[in-house]
Amino acid sequence: MLRLSPPGLQRFVQASSFEVCYGGAEANVAASLAGFGIPVQFVSRVPSNELGTSAVQTVRALGVGTQFIQRGGQRLGIYFLETGASARASKVLYDRAYSGIASIEPGMINWDDVFAEAEWFHWTGITPAVSEGAALAVEEALAAAKRQNVTISVDLNYRGNLWKWGKTPAEVMPDLVASCNVIVGNEEDAQKVFGIHPEGIEVKSGHLEASAYESVGRQLMERFPRCQRAIITLRSSISASHNAWSGVLWDGSKLLYGPKYDITHIVDRVGGGDSFVGGLIYGLLAFDGDNQKALNFAVAASCLKHTIPGDFNLVSVAEVEKLLSGDASGRVSR
Amino acid sequence: MLRLSPPGLQRFVQASSFEVCYGGAEANVAASLAGFGIPVQFVSRVPSNELGTSAVQTVRALGVGTQFIQRGGQRLGIYFLETGASARASKVLYDRAYSGIASIEPGMINWDDVFAEAEWFHWTGITPAVSEGAALAVEEALAAAKRQNVTISVDLNYRGNLWKWGKTPAEVMPDLVASCNVIVGNEEDAQKVFGIHPEGIEVKSGHLEASAYESVGRQLMERFPRCQRAIITLRSSISASHNAWSGVLWDGSKLLYGPKYDITHIVDRVGGGDSFVGGLIYGLLAFDGDNQKALNFAVAASCLKHTIPGDFNLVSVAEVEKLLSGDASGRVSR
Amino acid sequence: MLRLSPPGLQRFVQASSFEVCYGGAEANVAASLAGFGIPVQFVSRVPSNELGTSAVQTVRALGVGTQFIQRGGQRLGIYFLETGASARASKVLYDRAYSGIASIEPGMINWDDVFAEAEWFHWTGITPAVSEGAALAVEEALAAAKRQNVTISVDLNYRGNLWKWGKTPAEVMPDLVASCNVIVGNEEDAQKVFGIHPEGIEVKSGHLEASAYESVGRQLMERFPRCQRAIITLRSSISASHNAWSGVLWDGSKLLYGPKYDITHIVDRVGGGDSFVGGLIYGLLAFDGDNQKALNFAVAASCLKHTIPGDFNLVSVAEVEKLLSGDASGRVSR
Amino acid sequence: MLRLSPPGLQRFVQASSFEVCYGGAEANVAASLAGFGIPVQFVSRVPSNELGTSAVQTVRALGVGTQFIQRGGQRLGIYFLETGASARASKVLYDRAYSGIASIEPGMINWDDVFAEAEWFHWTGITPAVSEGAALAVEEALAAAKRQNVTISVDLNYRGNLWKWGKTPAEVMPDLVASCNVIVGNEEDAQKVFGIHPEGIEVKSGHLEASAYESVGRQLMERFPRCQRAIITLRSSISASHNAWSGVLWDGSKLLYGPKYDITHIVDRVGGGDSFVGGLIYGLLAFDGDNQKALNFAVAASCLKHTIPGDFNLVSVAEVEKLLSGDASGRVSR
Amino acid sequence: MLRLSPPGLQRFVQASSFEVCYGGAEANVAASLAGFGIPVQFVSRVPSNELGTSAVQTVRALGVGTQFIQRGGQRLGIYFLETGASARASKVLYDRAYSGIASIEPGMINWDDVFAEAEWFHWTGITPAVSEGAALAVEEALAAAKRQNVTISVDLNYRGNLWKWGKTPAEVMPDLVASCNVIVGNEEDAQKVFGIHPEGIEVKSGHLEASAYESVGRQLMERFPRCQRAIITLRSSISASHNAWSGVLWDGSKLLYGPKYDITHIVDRVGGGDSFVGGLIYGLLAFDGDNQKALNFAVAASCLKHTIPGDFNLVSVAEVEKLLSGDASGRVSR
Amino acid sequence: MLRLSPPGLQRFVQASSFEVCYGGAEANVAASLAGFGIPVQFVSRVPSNELGTSAVQTVRALGVGTQFIQRGGQRLGIYFLETGASARASKVLYDRAYSGIASIEPGMINWDDVFAEAEWFHWTGITPAVSEGAALAVEEALAAAKRQNVTISVDLNYRGNLWKWGKTPAEVMPDLVASCNVIVGNEEDAQKVFGIHPEGIEVKSGHLEASAYESVGRQLMERFPRCQRAIITLRSSISASHNAWSGVLWDGSKLLYGPKYDITHIVDRVGGGDSFVGGLIYGLLAFDGDNQKALNFAVAASCLKHTIPGDFNLVSVAEVEKLLSGDASGRVSR
Repeated sequence: MLRLSPPGLQRFVQASSFEVCYGGAEANVAASLAGFGIPVQFVSRVPSNELGTSAVQTVRALGVGTQFIQRGGQRLGIYFLETGASARASKVLYDRAYSGIASIEPGMINWDDVFAEAEWFHWTGITPAVSEGAALAVEEALAAAKRQNVTISVDLNYRGNLWKWGKTPAEVMPDLVASCNVIVGNEEDAQKVFGIHPEGIEVKSGHLEASAYESVGRQLMERFPRCQRAIITLRSSISASHNAWSGVLWDGSKLLYGPKYDITHIVDRVGGGDSFVGGLIYGLLAFDGDNQKALNFAVAASCLKHTIPGDFNLVSVAEVEKLLSGDASGRVSR
Repeated sequence: MLRLSPPGLQRFVQASSFEVCYGGAEANVAASLAGFGIPVQFVSRVPSNELGTSAVQTVRALGVGTQFIQRGGQRLGIYFLETGASARASKVLYDRAYSGIASIEPGMINWDDVFAEAEWFHWTGITPAVSEGAALAVEEALAAAKRQNVTISVDLNYRGNLWKWGKTPAEVMPDLVASCNVIVGNEEDAQKVFGIHPEGIEVKSGHLEASAYESVGRQLMERFPRCQRAIITLRSSISASHNAWSGVLWDGSKLLYGPKYDITHIVDRVGGGDSFVGGLIYGLLAFDGDNQKALNFAVAASCLKHTIPGDFNLVSVAEVEKLLSGDASGRVSR
Repeated sequence: MLRLSPPGLQRFVQASSFEVCYGGAEANVAASLAGFGIPVQFVSRVPSNELGTSAVQTVRALGVGTQFIQRGGQRLGIYFLETGASARASKVLYDRAYSGIASIEPGMINWDDVFAEAEWFHWTGITPAVSEGAALAVEEALAAAKRQNVTISVDLNYRGNLWKWGKTPAEVMPDLVASCNVIVGNEEDAQKVFGIHPEGIEVKSGHLEASAYESVGRQLMERFPRCQRAIITLRSSISASHNAWSGVLWDGSKLLYGPKYDITHIVDRVGGGDSFVGGLIYGLLAFDGDNQKALNFAVAASCLKHTIPGDFNLVSVAEVEKLLSGDASGRVSR
Repeated sequence: MLRLSPPGLQRFVQASSFEVCYGGAEANVAASLAGFGIPVQFVSRVPSNELGTSAVQTVRALGVGTQFIQRGGQRLGIYFLETGASARASKVLYDRAYSGIASIEPGMINWDDVFAEAEWFHWTGITPAVSEGAALAVEEALAAAKRQNVTISVDLNYRGNLWKWGKTPAEVMPDLVASCNVIVGNEEDAQKVFGIHPEGIEVKSGHLEASAYESVGRQLMERFPRCQRAIITLRSSISASHNAWSGVLWDGSKLLYGPKYDITHIVDRVGGGDSFVGGLIYGLLAFDGDNQKALNFAVAASCLKHTIPGDFNLVSVAEVEKLLSGDASGRVSR
Repeated sequence: MLRLSPPGLQRFVQASSFEVCYGGAEANVAASLAGFGIPVQFVSRVPSNELGTSAVQTVRALGVGTQFIQRGGQRLGIYFLETGASARASKVLYDRAYSGIASIEPGMINWDDVFAEAEWFHWTGITPAVSEGAALAVEEALAAAKRQNVTISVDLNYRGNLWKWGKTPAEVMPDLVASCNVIVGNEEDAQKVFGIHPEGIEVKSGHLEASAYESVGRQLMERFPRCQRAIITLRSSISASHNAWSGVLWDGSKLLYGPKYDITHIVDRVGGGDSFVGGLIYGLLAFDGDNQKALNFAVAASCLKHTIPGDFNLVSVAEVEKLLSGDASGRVSR
Repeated sequence: MLRLSPPGLQRFVQASSFEVCYGGAEANVAASLAGFGIPVQFVSRVPSNELGTSAVQTVRALGVGTQFIQRGGQRLGIYFLETGASARASKVLYDRAYSGIASIEPGMINWDDVFAEAEWFHWTGITPAVSEGAALAVEEALAAAKRQNVTISVDLNYRGNLWKWGKTPAEVMPDLVASCNVIVGNEEDAQKVFGIHPEGIEVKSGHLEASAYESVGRQLMERFPRCQRAIITLRSSISASHNAWSGVLWDGSKLLYGPKYDITHIVDRVGGGDSFVGGLIYGLLAFDGDNQKALNFAVAASCLKHTIPGDFNLVSVAEVEKLLSGDASGRVSR
């Protein structure tokens, strides 16, 4: 997906140029994993024009495998991002209807090939939102992944504006999420998609009380028995420039708390959740399923993402570990 | 329509930013006329988001009236422009399907209001190309314009890539063009749209022999009896950076030749044809229908357009007249 | 007026380019009102060269009426702005002597035409500062506005550096302000222009104690009996990057307090006061003179201005109301 | 003087930024000489604000002495430059009234100090154009220079738009030029300033016939007996992007012809004449008054200037000599 | 290798930023081949810091294999490029001493692995120039390539400034070139490296007489009997902005002439020779060794390179073939 | 030294351009002093290419004397700077091996000439780190400075990554520092270079307890008896965007405390220590050795540096004094 943003902190109507980057929820996770040294393939569909090629080149540069990216469809999905500051929120205009991925249909991708050597499959709630074909393709992928005993994770990623093809997330998502071993979402997702409510939380105020999310984790696992880990990212929005950031993981029996970071000078918070998932999957793979370590890594990795322009979390394992070791001082590294 | 171009002479895959401008064939003509001091309204349909607002503000800045622009539809049409040089051609990627104007339908615009005080109506062959609704809206507009005795001009503007909604230009255009008093086209348009061929011309070689166009003018008038002036723009492409540029006008009895300009350092040739039409309409209005003067003004105005970045021909009547008076020396004006 | 600023946070001597925008106190108020949907005319005088045209086009783009802008004078006024950060203050170099507006003379503008359909007239203390002719033109305008029962507001906007034509603000302003129904100023203006002092305030420390401004409001109304509302904007400068911002309104009998915003990441504070006035006039018009609502809207609107580069407050009523409703969290709006 | 130009080939009304450089006729000559290794002082007057400081720093960087630059006056002179292409001419908007140099008065500069160790004094016809005070300061400088037997050169540099202070160039210039040993001008200057006409030349057509300038040289010397060399720069404007460039020198008995260069891709022709003068003075000093060598060097140096953005001719003696040796091939120098 | 260039046509001393690209002779050839769809590996050595990573990512984006790139050495080689125009030549400052590749030593790369599945090995005369270790590594590579019957090509690429490690090209190159099947050079290379002179050519004047190169081809083949094709690129430098470009191929019995292109508006000529080699290798592979077709493809491909900023020739086979088919008109492709 | 940084807050791998500035520890101190009006010479060695010239021009622009800068050596030292934010630290990649200064040798500079009219000599621990020749040149300079009774100051500036030529700082620095009258360092320098430890400080936590530095000052003076002032800069790194900043001075009998500034929006902290030294030397010279005043000036000057992009502290004495007077409010200065 092509992302176009006015430079700096201009509003859309002020822009005489747009900064170009290529990203999107799943690509962002793939980019994180490649940066951490995990072999990864990005499966998508982009048009066979120069914009599609640019998108492919961007992820390939980072070491993400592109052999399963289909070329086709009328257009590359676009989103326009206006970056906010202080009391002015960032703003996203989606222009992704009729994109290559929106016009995907079952059978276009040979999922058995895709998963032949795969260990993990990650998808997000954005894909089934964009079209019926995309939802069916996810269904197809999940079936194949299960056939091959691939671990499956999902980021619920509720985007109300995208669900326009006829069904609601409540109709579509439960069947898909039922296949997943790991479920990630933020405080709105479980509520908007499954009607699962935390207690004692005021989303608007940005106030977070982590313990209240235990109930969310519990309900998710009851509803989706294959799920072994339910993770909730916790964002406290003091302003568009200043967030507190953390996450909790419910492992079925206890709630693990991640570290909490105060991000006082946000550079780009888009892709923050995806960088969390990238860190989490890396952590679960690298630390042999140690939930606490993986959660910590996920929170620290995504804390760093907020300081990097663009969708991708261009950090190394060493940089994340330096932060985890307690060094958030930002001293010049020479 | 939003135009996005890599800076300078970068290729699409090199761009880390796109330059933003707003334009499109009809908007470009309107911008020319406003710049020449002619009161003008731009009738279109753009989405009610910030991109639509930006498009409206851009033409309003120039003095183009925007009161008849409808706000609606899913997205603003986009075209991506890669500027070429020497042997490398400029490249356009259209991404205008499903735009506000493509989803227009008859009845959305009150054409009688539009033409209440109008003297002239200009449309182009791009509009009926984008969708059936747009074609019907043009039909509706033409009927209203004729009812109110408004002079009608058309720029044939054949774009093969855009005609995807089910009918061919050959099926649609003749009925629409039949209402027109002034027909403008380049050497391909008459051929591709109506099968009308000039003689003695090799389009590919870029070689132009103006006299051969007399037959084209004659055939157009025979086929469309309301037409009183048939104008053909003549572009000789030596390379992407160097064109010769002229035009001829058939007034029903003789072929008038415009001046010929050698444009050796093209800055931006997109909108060149539109700036010709803007100059022509201005000339016909300002010079009381003097065809030769209007043709000369059109050619000179559009010669200057090739030196200006963006879609619009931001020149004054005085600047065009200075060129027409023979001063193409480019001496610094202090 | 043309504003030229080094990019980002460069100092003047570092700049190899200047960012261009067009603004000025009165234009900024007009831009705010147009953005809120209020029909508005900008009355000024700019030279008949391309810079003057650019200034006109900039406000026209936003929907501000430009029919009363006179074209004439030697030059367009310029101000150079160096944006500060933390302990380094922003710096303004004025270069507006001999501008079109400075060389205005009584009789150049037909004020009766201007006010024929007007409901409100706003002026600022900057205009009479630039030249005797400009001061006389304001006098003339005020007389016409009173004749036609137009509501009159003034932003005192004391700029010591501009008063160079022979008289002091203390000699000129009282007669002009005497015509006004609404007086707006910041903590320095009343003191520097009229010698009216608040009590219990230390301007330098940036500490603000709103209640002390009651006495200022009272004194203003005693001195200017036509005044029905005296508004004082309250800026607490913690640093160039961090201000607290609020305002109070004395309605003749009580002091109303606006909300107080902590703006921790200022993008551009120039035009902050003008955006307050724009919000205030909008509020008084839209909320039928409800002082509290208007004050709240003014403070919130101008809080948002601090996050937008350039002089203009490019926000919508909906965005201001979202902030007023308590949502300053800056969550991404998708 | 501050020069502000829209980036690339944008028109003024398109610019969202201006590129900044500092220059001006005399500064440009000084910069050339410093680049060729000649010790040189720039005498001027700039305001004591950051813009004045930037101007001083810019020439000091190049090695030009700045100790005689006075700090004072209200503003730094500005000129806005829009760069043309092909048939569109470059455009200059002067905004230099009331500048530091325009408000200079006799007695402000101690010319005896200035010339204490000087060998050469160069001035241009722009300085007496800007104000009476500046004209008087030139008069004063010339008297001092003559007292100290300093060689004096002038570039006539006729700028009709600048002479606004009450006298015409025809009234002022003859007395000043009478002190000069070297007179430089282009084809318009001698005509506009002294009414001296070449024969057989059509300025508009850009056609140049060098021999006709012999009569101009002869007339200049007859009128100004101190003059030992009269030099005319010859510019043939094919278009704004393509000029032919040469010059001739009348030494009192014969006309010397410089080389002629075809500059097919002009980058920036502003300062072209100044770079000619810089090359000429260098040549006369370095080649012991060999007129032919100096003329050749001047033409070649200024040919290179046309390829360099900004006012200054940032080339070395070696680069000029490489061109003079016949290598205009532009082969990559590694 | 990192390439840093002042933006546009600025000189080095004017630059307040440098444009970044990554390239180098061998990388450029690899990039061309990847763009034409040929599987290709780039073998090099870059430091294990972020600049090395950037270089790797840049070629990987294009589809060039990076698995044989060693990470090590102190620094990434840099070259600074100032782009010329008209009579001002482009200028290259090399800063590549002590780079990763310069500190390579025999044994660092497992050439048998590299060539395990390879069909073709291309190297250039730049590598043995930078250090003794690099020269030895080339020797080692050539031995391995011959062992595995890989076709070997060389671009002589004489760079006098680089040979500083103790031996001259005349001492080193003959033994290395002796292994090659295809030898490419320009008019200076054969002369400077082997003392082989064409006849009837004046290099300085930029005049080219292709037939004279037959003798060069003949002498190369006599001296290096493994060589089956000797190719000479022919550049006629009219100016830095305008070159004519062609090439000839001696197949041992006759001289084949490539097409000749007049490149009137050069954008970036660095990498021109490398793009020729990329086109040649592609052509020889794709057209089954048809020398004429390969030569034509090479010349056309590299003609297009001159219109593309940066080192790489980012064109497709279709674009080259369009030019070869005779369409150099640069008409907009929509 | 050339400094190259990705624009804004991009990471190295994202940069398609680098911002260029020229700086380095000693140049930064010289720039500060020149800005405060102190005559100063910068002694260094830079290559005789355009990059060397650019470095010279940059400091000369500011008024720094350049007559003792030697031209020679292979390359200009480079450092790449990636600016961090919040928890992401800034990152420096040094590429200064084999630079002009690294290849300096004793005898190249005539130190007696250098110090002929000098009052003060400042050097830093970076110079002896880069090469043995540079260390010997410092030794030579110190001997000359002592001969001429010049006051000597040193900034210890420990850079572990630079000491690669064979000796450790512990072997080299003591003899050099023994000549110094003023020693400046931060909390790591004394420890890493001399093994002198403060007490009660946790560097990592960024927590500073100024009193603990008394022991450091005392130990330094005991070890280096010529030293009369030992100054320690105190940086509390809350994050890369937010530091607290102060300094203490041990005068041999008591510890003086500087003011403490909370820098909440850091723009560029590189050169912060150098700007402290520049302020300190200025203060000691301007305030007749008043340690408290000099320390205060140093801290305030360097506080402002953190708000200015680039290496240099481009502030005036008046701006520093305004801050010292207590005005850190950042109110717009008009």
